[in-house]
Amino acid sequence: MSEFFPGIGPIKYEGPGSRNPLAFRYYDADRKVLGKTMRDHLRFSVAYWHAFRGSGADPFGPGTIVRAWEKGGDPVETAVVRVHAAFEFMRKLGTPYYCFHDRDIAPEGKTLAESNRNLDAVIKAVKQKQDETGIKLLWGTANLFSHPRYMNGAATNPDAAVFAFAAAQVKKMMEVTLELGGEGYTFWGGREGYQTLLNTDMKRESDHLARFLQMAAAYRKEIGLQGPLYIEPKPMEPTKHQYDFDAATVIGFLRRHGLDGVFKLNLECNHATLAGHSFHHEVELASREGMLGSVDANSGDTLLGWDTDQFPMDPARRQ
Amino acid sequence: MSEFFPGIGPIKYEGPGSRNPLAFRYYDADRKVLGKTMRDHLRFSVAYWHAFRGSGADPFGPGTIVRAWEKGGDPVETAVVRVHAAFEFMRKLGTPYYCFHDRDIAPEGKTLAESNRNLDAVIKAVKQKQDETGIKLLWGTANLFSHPRYMNGAATNPDAAVFAFAAAQVKKMMEVTLELGGEGYTFWGGREGYQTLLNTDMKRESDHLARFLQMAAAYRKEIGLQGPLYIEPKPMEPTKHQYDFDAATVIGFLRRHGLDGVFKLNLECNHATLAGHSFHHEVELASREGMLGSVDANSGDTLLGWDTDQFPMDPARRQ
Amino acid sequence: MSEFFPGIGPIKYEGPGSRNPLAFRYYDADRKVLGKTMRDHLRFSVAYWHAFRGSGADPFGPGTIVRAWEKGGDPVETAVVRVHAAFEFMRKLGTPYYCFHDRDIAPEGKTLAESNRNLDAVIKAVKQKQDETGIKLLWGTANLFSHPRYMNGAATNPDAAVFAFAAAQVKKMMEVTLELGGEGYTFWGGREGYQTLLNTDMKRESDHLARFLQMAAAYRKEIGLQGPLYIEPKPMEPTKHQYDFDAATVIGFLRRHGLDGVFKLNLECNHATLAGHSFHHEVELASREGMLGSVDANSGDTLLGWDTDQFPMDPARRQ
Amino acid sequence: MSEFFPGIGPIKYEGPGSRNPLAFRYYDADRKVLGKTMRDHLRFSVAYWHAFRGSGADPFGPGTIVRAWEKGGDPVETAVVRVHAAFEFMRKLGTPYYCFHDRDIAPEGKTLAESNRNLDAVIKAVKQKQDETGIKLLWGTANLFSHPRYMNGAATNPDAAVFAFAAAQVKKMMEVTLELGGEGYTFWGGREGYQTLLNTDMKRESDHLARFLQMAAAYRKEIGLQGPLYIEPKPMEPTKHQYDFDAATVIGFLRRHGLDGVFKLNLECNHATLAGHSFHHEVELASREGMLGSVDANSGDTLLGWDTDQFPMDPARRQ
Repeated sequence: MSEFFPGIGPIKYEGPGSRNPLAFRYYDADRKVLGKTMRDHLRFSVAYWHAFRGSGADPFGPGTIVRAWEKGGDPVETAVVRVHAAFEFMRKLGTPYYCFHDRDIAPEGKTLAESNRNLDAVIKAVKQKQDETGIKLLWGTANLFSHPRYMNGAATNPDAAVFAFAAAQVKKMMEVTLELGGEGYTFWGGREGYQTLLNTDMKRESDHLARFLQMAAAYRKEIGLQGPLYIEPKPMEPTKHQYDFDAATVIGFLRRHGLDGVFKLNLECNHATLAGHSFHHEVELASREGMLGSVDANSGDTLLGWDTDQFPMDPARRQ
Repeated sequence: MSEFFPGIGPIKYEGPGSRNPLAFRYYDADRKVLGKTMRDHLRFSVAYWHAFRGSGADPFGPGTIVRAWEKGGDPVETAVVRVHAAFEFMRKLGTPYYCFHDRDIAPEGKTLAESNRNLDAVIKAVKQKQDETGIKLLWGTANLFSHPRYMNGAATNPDAAVFAFAAAQVKKMMEVTLELGGEGYTFWGGREGYQTLLNTDMKRESDHLARFLQMAAAYRKEIGLQGPLYIEPKPMEPTKHQYDFDAATVIGFLRRHGLDGVFKLNLECNHATLAGHSFHHEVELASREGMLGSVDANSGDTLLGWDTDQFPMDPARRQ
Repeated sequence: MSEFFPGIGPIKYEGPGSRNPLAFRYYDADRKVLGKTMRDHLRFSVAYWHAFRGSGADPFGPGTIVRAWEKGGDPVETAVVRVHAAFEFMRKLGTPYYCFHDRDIAPEGKTLAESNRNLDAVIKAVKQKQDETGIKLLWGTANLFSHPRYMNGAATNPDAAVFAFAAAQVKKMMEVTLELGGEGYTFWGGREGYQTLLNTDMKRESDHLARFLQMAAAYRKEIGLQGPLYIEPKPMEPTKHQYDFDAATVIGFLRRHGLDGVFKLNLECNHATLAGHSFHHEVELASREGMLGSVDANSGDTLLGWDTDQFPMDPARRQ
Repeated sequence: MSEFFPGIGPIKYEGPGSRNPLAFRYYDADRKVLGKTMRDHLRFSVAYWHAFRGSGADPFGPGTIVRAWEKGGDPVETAVVRVHAAFEFMRKLGTPYYCFHDRDIAPEGKTLAESNRNLDAVIKAVKQKQDETGIKLLWGTANLFSHPRYMNGAATNPDAAVFAFAAAQVKKMMEVTLELGGEGYTFWGGREGYQTLLNTDMKRESDHLARFLQMAAAYRKEIGLQGPLYIEPKPMEPTKHQYDFDAATVIGFLRRHGLDGVFKLNLECNHATLAGHSFHHEVELASREGMLGSVDANSGDTLLGWDTDQFPMDPARRQ
């Protein structure tokens, strides 16, 4: 497998004054702060879906990002090539962790069995690259929101078959996480919420979500998966009301259903501001309640409601 | 005592087509809906502070409302005259209930003892008017936010003396509510929240709030006060973060501290939209969780964050 | 060409009490109001891009809408089939007008010449259907925002080649509008705005936009295109700042550049509320300034910033 | 007149590392930047109404700020004492300018004549303090929004008598500004806007506002007042729609009415974010259009819509 980022070596710490765009100005991995290295304090993780699957799309255009290794052809083979590009990127960046959804790393098939086979094929390459580079899986997660079957939610879907399909995806992805030595497993709100109360039994859907998470917690124990389960508070995206609105709501829900022992929160900055809170508030609240797990360190624009940095501009792509 | 609204008789139901501004177009008190009168379904209550103490002030002006009976002079005597005006208003309006804060109905004195004596003096007149008109007290509440002592909160104030003063006010007002046969007692968020996390121990303040409410619940039982205690979710007003942000947050808090048996929620429309929810959402959530108590039926402007109807325009007042 | 909506006849007015989901409850086309039929007052127009090209996609999923006639295959042939479906839909709906972008109705080719040939091929079918049904083109418009070349704007793009490409698209689409007897021509803000001031010369970009519109106005005159040119105020979507922020901004801009004679505003409800105004405000402002042209009658959710109705739910599509 | 801030000397520049709360960390008045001192670049001005008349009030309480020199008694005498306190404060702070409203610096009387006499009496003391300290008036302005007569606007009030009263206030305050050597004169939106379109003729009110400003511009010329006139864009505060919504709206309005020669913009940060813009946007826009005049350097909280710093906390005031 050839080099994907030729001419670029390991990214180094050069200090705040550096004008090199490919240098760290503040992150000095080996520097000790209060007796612990920055690497161990921060445990940076590359999000596979943003870094390798984001297209730069927005509601007004299908995207602008061009990646040299995305040449079409067989989707599983392309997925394996992408794994090589990703690990080269992470190795050069020097981040100790990464994380991914099942459907980021391997293509969805026509059936669950085919999707699982695709996942197994790609994971084989992933495992080899983990061994080669020492880069570790922070946590795994399942995409329970992109496929049309999930248009009305996964665990809160009124159709039991969708609930079952989602459970099967989580089961498989927990096994994959175990196999890769992942240090936790994450749940997103996805489409768990409602568009209108006129056709929604909020209490019943909320109870289904709790049951789903309880089953996942039991399976975690059964297979011996290490590390906590995470749940990420998220308002508005994309339903009118997302059940996991903010940290206080999720903590109340977890306690109500006896899930606060095994679950911790994964907090995202933009979700905090969308919910009307400062990010500091959400972190402080979760921390004081003993529920702070992980952090999704993006940022939102409070005037717009989203992060304009999501739309990268590549001048070479024009025309 | 003379008539305060001369020439105005009881307000009647005249149907949706009425052009009479002093008529009900939808509220037909004796009409039965599903076996119960609208009066009993809706149990309308006049908020003393809006109807009789609001000045029409906003941050850019001290207010425009003129009330003929507010002539200055001795504040307790004025308060008694105001009670007569209020009961005439409520009698003519035909609402079965009213509600008030301690400091709306009687003036604050220089000491707690004087404030309590003022309250006793005015309550005597209130009781007489209740007997005379049959209008009942829906609930009582204490103003724990207007006096400068409460600038950093009441139950969550870092100064124990302020906590104690607030408790004394609540104790007295619960006794007054009992004496007047009130059907419940309400707590507002007031200034329970923070302006900045830099000088706030959020967990400790939240625990103090819980302790305060537990003490109030115990005193309710001790004196035999009937009806539930209410707590009103409220974001942003006026602190950067109010602890009682929304229904989900308050329900989680009440359960956490064993208060969900005696407390119910008092939901306000504008507080719902300020927190990023529809009002229907808050009502549905509280209802499904068995926590719906009372409703503050105002409305907010989602483009502004407040209700422009709060600034009444009185053309006679100009110049 | 077979029937696309079999079993569905013309949609009729049945009055407010109708429970038939395929009936008008308020729109009674032939009813005269103040001496003019509702058809002529309202001049309803079907937006081709929403009704026939929208996929139901959102940032979390690629969409859920299935249309029986979208079978893949040659894109120009598919586009012609789609025209037949659309005109059957509009004929049954009874709307007198429709409107479209160049790229909605015919596929983009590899070059401008190929795109224009595609457009010509499809327009031939469109013209035939117009003649057959009597349905008329309200206005035409060019999509200057979806293709990656437009990632940094069209008329305000720092690359002159992009400006030229956009001008060529508008030229062609004006000719198509003339050929189809369109009653006006519309400009959207598209990506005319900025993500950051750090690399933007706002004044210069604004002047380029004015020059672009002046050239379009001159070409309109040259070819004898009837009806006004429209411009649609739009904030935030998708840039941090869109130059056509709201009605007042656009009116000021048009007057500044001598464009207020030939241009009128096309106002959208959701754009009004995103800009912090009520829709009534924007309509009233434009109307009083003699600049009201056309209306995009959608609605936004002021709590979310977008319209949840954009995500249709098709229960048959699940799983 | 005794010292009002005893024990406090001139505030000095001590650099970014200083822990002295009464020191400048960045503002080094005499430091030259690009050939000009920071004093001359920034021309800091103390706003009399915030620094000396703000009470710390919010909609939930009447305020907490205690000033030793505010002892009640004759309001004109108190106003003169306040002038001495203010000039001591400004002298010690080292700011070269200040600014005020007519009603900040001297109390409103029962008639315009009495108000003008009050103003004359206080201005005498102000002039003496200006001479003594060398502190200069940046600009003057009239308060056309706090008195109940202005509840429906000043220049846009439907009552001609209110328009006339406002004009008389501006006339007097322009004369006072001239007398004090002020370097400009400012107009605020005040209550120029509407609560509902149902009783508002927006175009007519806007034309009245233009006429008002044209008259002011003529009087400026007549009396020989130096410096520009300023107008401050402001949305939402306090009407549903303020006519001076943002920089683009105001620039369009000024040009429309031939006022862009003599008027410049006075931009406030919080007003920018309330209007949905970054402050940088408003500054850049005004600057590029040659309309940047002055800056009100506060900040707003985009999650709340107001600045939490407006509610100062004085621990000594409790209980």
